[in-house]
Amino acid sequence: MARLVMKFGGTSVANVERIRNVARHVKREWDAGNDVAVVVSAMSGKTNELVAWVKDASPLYDPKEYDTVVASGEQVTSGLLALALHELGLKARSWQGWQVPIYGSDAHGSSRIVDIDGANILKGFSDDRSIAVVSGFQGVNRETGRIVTLGRGGSDTSAVALAAALKADRCDIYTDVDGVYTTDPRIVSKARRLDRVSFEEMLEMASLGAKVLQVRSVELAMVHRVPTYVRSSFDDPSSPTPGTLICDEEDIVEQQIVTGIAYSKDEAQITLRRVADQPGVAAAIFGPLADANINVDMIIQVVSDDQATTDITFTVPTAEFERATSILRNARDAISYADLQGATDVVKVSAIGVGMRSHAGVAAKAFRALADKGINIRAITTSEIKFSILIDAAYTELAVRTLHSLYGLDAA
Amino acid sequence: MARLVMKFGGTSVANVERIRNVARHVKREWDAGNDVAVVVSAMSGKTNELVAWVKDASPLYDPKEYDTVVASGEQVTSGLLALALHELGLKARSWQGWQVPIYGSDAHGSSRIVDIDGANILKGFSDDRSIAVVSGFQGVNRETGRIVTLGRGGSDTSAVALAAALKADRCDIYTDVDGVYTTDPRIVSKARRLDRVSFEEMLEMASLGAKVLQVRSVELAMVHRVPTYVRSSFDDPSSPTPGTLICDEEDIVEQQIVTGIAYSKDEAQITLRRVADQPGVAAAIFGPLADANINVDMIIQVVSDDQATTDITFTVPTAEFERATSILRNARDAISYADLQGATDVVKVSAIGVGMRSHAGVAAKAFRALADKGINIRAITTSEIKFSILIDAAYTELAVRTLHSLYGLDAA
Repeated sequence: MARLVMKFGGTSVANVERIRNVARHVKREWDAGNDVAVVVSAMSGKTNELVAWVKDASPLYDPKEYDTVVASGEQVTSGLLALALHELGLKARSWQGWQVPIYGSDAHGSSRIVDIDGANILKGFSDDRSIAVVSGFQGVNRETGRIVTLGRGGSDTSAVALAAALKADRCDIYTDVDGVYTTDPRIVSKARRLDRVSFEEMLEMASLGAKVLQVRSVELAMVHRVPTYVRSSFDDPSSPTPGTLICDEEDIVEQQIVTGIAYSKDEAQITLRRVADQPGVAAAIFGPLADANINVDMIIQVVSDDQATTDITFTVPTAEFERATSILRNARDAISYADLQGATDVVKVSAIGVGMRSHAGVAAKAFRALADKGINIRAITTSEIKFSILIDAAYTELAVRTLHSLYGLDAA
Repeated sequence: MARLVMKFGGTSVANVERIRNVARHVKREWDAGNDVAVVVSAMSGKTNELVAWVKDASPLYDPKEYDTVVASGEQVTSGLLALALHELGLKARSWQGWQVPIYGSDAHGSSRIVDIDGANILKGFSDDRSIAVVSGFQGVNRETGRIVTLGRGGSDTSAVALAAALKADRCDIYTDVDGVYTTDPRIVSKARRLDRVSFEEMLEMASLGAKVLQVRSVELAMVHRVPTYVRSSFDDPSSPTPGTLICDEEDIVEQQIVTGIAYSKDEAQITLRRVADQPGVAAAIFGPLADANINVDMIIQVVSDDQATTDITFTVPTAEFERATSILRNARDAISYADLQGATDVVKVSAIGVGMRSHAGVAAKAFRALADKGINIRAITTSEIKFSILIDAAYTELAVRTLHSLYGLDAA
């Protein structure tokens, strides 16, 4: 007898037939004696359709109306799943964000959940074990009473936040893959599904390009210590595969040095040549980018041949590349640099593992292995439990496979 | 400077292009100095799609979840119209039923509006003349906090109820026809658009088959004396046609004896032969039908040849015909009749006009004219301002045209 939050994404609820399959997954858990809240996304494709209408009606749309229109997708799915559960003989009702209520900040389109009042749902559990079907991705602003949405992929965050509010024993994120892998199985056929991964590692993996979970949802799971499973909704509901448990580090017995290899193509490199090596130059470069809300990631600085200037290399999201270079060209006098070079055909490959904390030379081993394959490293950043390298995009697969083998992650 | 409610149905908001056209209609009224609340339906076809999903998920669906799913259609339209108004430089925001709030009874799927709190919308008017875009067809139950819908066509009712709550000077119902006609122009090419029609006449016309307005909305307009225009949304927004004004009888100068001819194919006839002519027999027949929520309309009773029994004929909605005959067959012993005969290929043709109150023989004139055309009358009912006759469906067009000419309604 436990309390459980289950979350199903857009492809898992793409049509009524799939919603019926979701209902069978829910019934299995309910039959096992669990009290269940289910969080659902919109049917796949629906959100895109709604967003397209919004942009057609108003290209520079009011985000308050965007949220009103787009949140309707989850409303539909929540009602349909409640109905499908009724057909299986279960008590269930739908809950919209404003009904729970799930309170969100007024940052429309990218609201953050500030509070969830779980009392109504818990009352349903204690009254008659009624299943709560909650619309993901949405909430209501307490002050204005308007619908807010959490941004794309926000249903993962809804699920984890609801699990924390309900003090659930577990949050199961059902998706179109059957767990978290050591790396992308489309690139490395020997990728293995992980039985367990720590919150910290999952957070890095999500931040560094693994798309299985939204970063914010992992943060919440870590802060509230919500044991979270990633598992497949396409399994036969009567014999599901276990998936991957994201949990405390202490709950993982056999710890690897490196747990996974992630990669992200959403990086563009900018190099400023012969920047005057004097105090305040970093502020002159990165200040205007920060003002423009452009997120700068890897930064390296190398003293030039002439010893009086330096070369500064950093990365920005690919979508911001044009805007960033335009800002830096306008600031050329203030910064004083000889040349601006950019590259968008680059990829960031990262190795993540809590074992790095206690093992020296983990990254150095990678640099050698990549050099042996003739892969040129453009930039490096490291932190306590991961390192990232920036390389030419053409070497993505080779680099990922090399590191995957190097750290003993290949399946037998 | 007036206060105005404008309502646009599904075909008027069928896509973003049409929503932009609606925005231009709204701008015209706002520019003229009116404070405006707009009530919108779902995009045409959307409600049917949502209903189909509900029935697929659960054939005997929970109406609470039905309402949740189906109300999402208006939510989308209200947001999109607010955005289209922004594009024209107007202040506007969407309001869902629960946000206004519009309180409805808990009869899910056919809720009745019990109260509308117009304070928030009126504050928008007085603050900055902000246009309120209100989702039609929906409300919220005050006790349960759940979304309710008013039943098909309920957006007309939303509009008139909102006009009453806001003490609007006028309610404009924009639709795909340009007003109320003396009869269906698809049947009678000489049908004329009425400039004015009284609340009482419109109520009868809507009840008797004219589909231009929902019956409940006319009732509300009559009770609250809301002057209501029926007009076309397909007009050029810069030069609209006036439409038909539904108003108090006293405001109509040139009163006709008969104002319009309506017809309804949604009638089925049932005749019970040789029913024992004794007290309590009517209760034995109509009691079980009432218990089954079957609405009985025209009733006539004729003494049989043998003087000891009577024949009883009445009509029920076509959709209830099978259920009604089944109930009556089961109750044959209790009622005691010789034979049950039914017919679904019948039509009810009605003539409506407040002038009938003061003119005798209006209906008798019709009976003669129809007899001259060889049309057999199966049943007749009359009331103060209308009479209805039941005839074979094959004669529908002939009968409507005959009455239309008879009462001088043909266009010159």
